[in-house]
Amino acid sequence: MFRTIRASFRAFGTISVLHSRKGTYLKYPVGFLVGTGAALLWTTQNVHTERRRQRINTNQFMALPITSVKHLEEYPEDMKSQMELMIMRVQADFCRALEAEEFAGKKFKIDRWERKEGGGGITCVLQDGEVFEKAGVNISVVSGNLPPGAVQQMRSRGKKLADGQLPFFAAGVSAVIHPRNPFVPTIHFNYRYFEVTDSTGQKQWWFGGGTDLTPYYLDEQDSIHFHRTLKEACDQHDPSYYPRFKKWCDEYFHIPHRKECRGIGGIFFDDLDEPSQDDAFAFVSSCADSVIPSYMPLVRQHKNDSYGDPQRTWQLLRRGRYVEFNLIYDRGTKFGLHTPGARFESILMSLPLTARWEYMHEPKTTSREGQLLAVLKNPRDWLQIEKKP
Amino acid sequence: MFRTIRASFRAFGTISVLHSRKGTYLKYPVGFLVGTGAALLWTTQNVHTERRRQRINTNQFMALPITSVKHLEEYPEDMKSQMELMIMRVQADFCRALEAEEFAGKKFKIDRWERKEGGGGITCVLQDGEVFEKAGVNISVVSGNLPPGAVQQMRSRGKKLADGQLPFFAAGVSAVIHPRNPFVPTIHFNYRYFEVTDSTGQKQWWFGGGTDLTPYYLDEQDSIHFHRTLKEACDQHDPSYYPRFKKWCDEYFHIPHRKECRGIGGIFFDDLDEPSQDDAFAFVSSCADSVIPSYMPLVRQHKNDSYGDPQRTWQLLRRGRYVEFNLIYDRGTKFGLHTPGARFESILMSLPLTARWEYMHEPKTTSREGQLLAVLKNPRDWLQIEKKP
Repeated sequence: MFRTIRASFRAFGTISVLHSRKGTYLKYPVGFLVGTGAALLWTTQNVHTERRRQRINTNQFMALPITSVKHLEEYPEDMKSQMELMIMRVQADFCRALEAEEFAGKKFKIDRWERKEGGGGITCVLQDGEVFEKAGVNISVVSGNLPPGAVQQMRSRGKKLADGQLPFFAAGVSAVIHPRNPFVPTIHFNYRYFEVTDSTGQKQWWFGGGTDLTPYYLDEQDSIHFHRTLKEACDQHDPSYYPRFKKWCDEYFHIPHRKECRGIGGIFFDDLDEPSQDDAFAFVSSCADSVIPSYMPLVRQHKNDSYGDPQRTWQLLRRGRYVEFNLIYDRGTKFGLHTPGARFESILMSLPLTARWEYMHEPKTTSREGQLLAVLKNPRDWLQIEKKP
Repeated sequence: MFRTIRASFRAFGTISVLHSRKGTYLKYPVGFLVGTGAALLWTTQNVHTERRRQRINTNQFMALPITSVKHLEEYPEDMKSQMELMIMRVQADFCRALEAEEFAGKKFKIDRWERKEGGGGITCVLQDGEVFEKAGVNISVVSGNLPPGAVQQMRSRGKKLADGQLPFFAAGVSAVIHPRNPFVPTIHFNYRYFEVTDSTGQKQWWFGGGTDLTPYYLDEQDSIHFHRTLKEACDQHDPSYYPRFKKWCDEYFHIPHRKECRGIGGIFFDDLDEPSQDDAFAFVSSCADSVIPSYMPLVRQHKNDSYGDPQRTWQLLRRGRYVEFNLIYDRGTKFGLHTPGARFESILMSLPLTARWEYMHEPKTTSREGQLLAVLKNPRDWLQIEKKP
C-alpha cells in the first residue's frame, strides 16, 4: 500500500485540487499532507472519483504540456496522462535546480515543438553558462505508427508484435548536463513510458530508463553518494533492482572499440512491465526524483574547484569519448535520428559544447587521469553489494 | 596503349630498376623516361620479364611496406603488389607535401602496426602543427577471412559470394587533413583495392575511393580548381567518370538529419571492376596523384589569411558536423570499428582535434557562413557539366 500512496502522491504533486463547484481552493497546501498517509490516501481517492474537481497548475512546468490540459484533466488515471505530468514536473524541477547553481542568473532557453506525425516536446537548453557549459533537459510525448526500424528493434528484444500498422505512444524525459569545471561530473538520465497496440488489439506497455554519471576525475565519495542515492530509490521498490540495473548500466554504457565504459555507471533498465503498471510507474518516478539528490550536491561541492589547462584538456578528450558513444552506439540516438519527423536538435542536445580527439592519447597509469581510466575499464562495485550475503 | 604505359610507369615509379646481376644501376634516372613512350614501354617490358632485376627503394616510403619487400619484388605484376606500392608512394608524397607547408618544421609521427589476423598498416599523424591542426594519412594492407558484417554489406551491394569462408585482401590509402586556418578547407581522400575469393574458387576484385573537400568558407575559384583537377584525372580514363562520380560523392557525403552535405563534394566511387584491372588501377592511380595538385595550392593560398574568433567558432561547428557524418553514417568508419582486430586509433584519426556543438545554431542566410550552408544544401555543378551537350 505504501507504494500506491507514493505513486498517488507523486501524480498528486502535479495536480492542484480544487473544489471547483464551490470555486474555493483546498485549505491545506499539498505539501502539508506528506507523511499523513491516511489523509493523503483519502484525498487521492477523492481525486480519482471526482474527476471534475481536478485542475492542473501549468505554471509549475517549463511550458504547456504537449497533450491538451483538458484531456489530461479528464483522464488523470490513464498512464499516458500520469507519465506526461510526471516528466513535465521532473523537467521543471531539474531545470530550476540547475539554474539555481548559476552565478549570474543564466536561464534555460525553452523550445516547445510539435511533431507533424503526432505529439511534440519541450526542449530546454542552458548553453555557455558559468557553471554549466551545456545543459539540455528534454521531454517528448509522441504518438503515431511505429516506423519499420523501431518494429525490428523491438522484435529483436523479444516483443511479440503482429504485422500491420502499430500505433504507439511514447513519453519520456531525458537530460545531459555538461558542466564547465572538470571536477564536476556530467550526468545523464532518461525515463520513458511506451505503449504499442497491434492489429489484434493487444496493447503492450513498458517503462525504461536510467541515470548515470560521467566524471572526469574520480572522487570516491561522490561516486558512492551517487550510487547510494540511486540504490535507495530502487530499494523502496525491489531489492533486486539496484544490483540488476547497475550491472545493466555498466554493460550498456560501454564503448567496445576502446574497451572502456563511458562513465562510472548508475542504473539502466528497459522493458519493465511488472509487477503492475502502477508499481512500475512508482519505481520510475522514484528514480526520476532521485536525480536531484544524487547530483546537485556534487555540483555544489566542486563548481568552485580550481583547475588549469591540463584538466580542461582531459575533460575535452573525455567528452570526445562521450560523443563516440552517443553517435556510434547509443540506441536512443540512433533510433531517434532514423525516426521520420524526429527533431534532431533535441536529440543532439546531448553533445557537449566542445570536444577533442588526440591521436593515441594515453595518460600515465599513476596519474589522476589514469586512475579514472582504470575504473572505466573495470567498473567498480561502489556499494560492495557483491560482498553482502 | 597510352593507359597501359601510364599504369606501367606509375608502378615503375616505385621501383628502382637495377641490373642486379652486374650490380650496376640503370644509367638513366627513372624521371628521364617520361614522355619517351617507346623507351618506357621497352623498359617496362624488361621489368616484367626480368623479375630478378627489380629492387624496391623503401627509403622513399614513410616506413617499410607491410608485405615483405622480397615478396613485392618477386610478384611485381600482382595487383596486390602494385596497389601496395602505389599507396605507399602516395602516402609518402602527400605527407611530405604537407610537412613542407608547416612553418616550424613539424613532422608526421609514423606508426607502423601489425594486425594479428593478417597484415597491418602505417599511420602517419601530424598533430597540433601551425598550419595543420590534425592531419592523418594512413595506409593499410590487410588480409584474412571476411567478418559476417562485411559479407552482409557486400551482398547488399550486389556481390555474389558463395557461403563458407571468404578469404580477402584489402589495401588502401586514406587521409583527412584538418587545417588550423578556417579559410583553408579540410580534404579527405581514400583509394582502395579489394579481392575476395569464395569457396568455389571464384575471385572477385574491385577498386573504390574518392576525394572530397570540406571548406568552412566558400571560395568559388578554389572549388572550381579542386573539381577541375579531379575532372582532368577522370577524363584521362573515361569521360563519363567525373559526372557519375561527382554525383555519387554528393549523395554519399550527405548528413540526412541535417539535410546538408558534409562539404562541396568531389568524386566518390565503389565496386569499380572495369574495363580491366590494369585500366581501373591506372584510373585510381591518376585520382590519387591528383590529390596534391587539387589541394596544396589552396593551402598555400589561404594558410596566412587573417581570421578571428567568429571564423574559428564556425570552423569548430562545421567540424562537429564532420564528426556526425563520420561516426553516424560513414560506411568505412562503421565497418572499421566493427571489424575484429581493427586499429581504432587509425580509423578515428579522421576526427578533428576540436569540434563544437551549439544548440540551434543557424547563421544568417546573407552571411558568408549562410552562403556556404546554401551550397551544402544544394550541391553545385561547379564545372557546368550539365549545361554542356
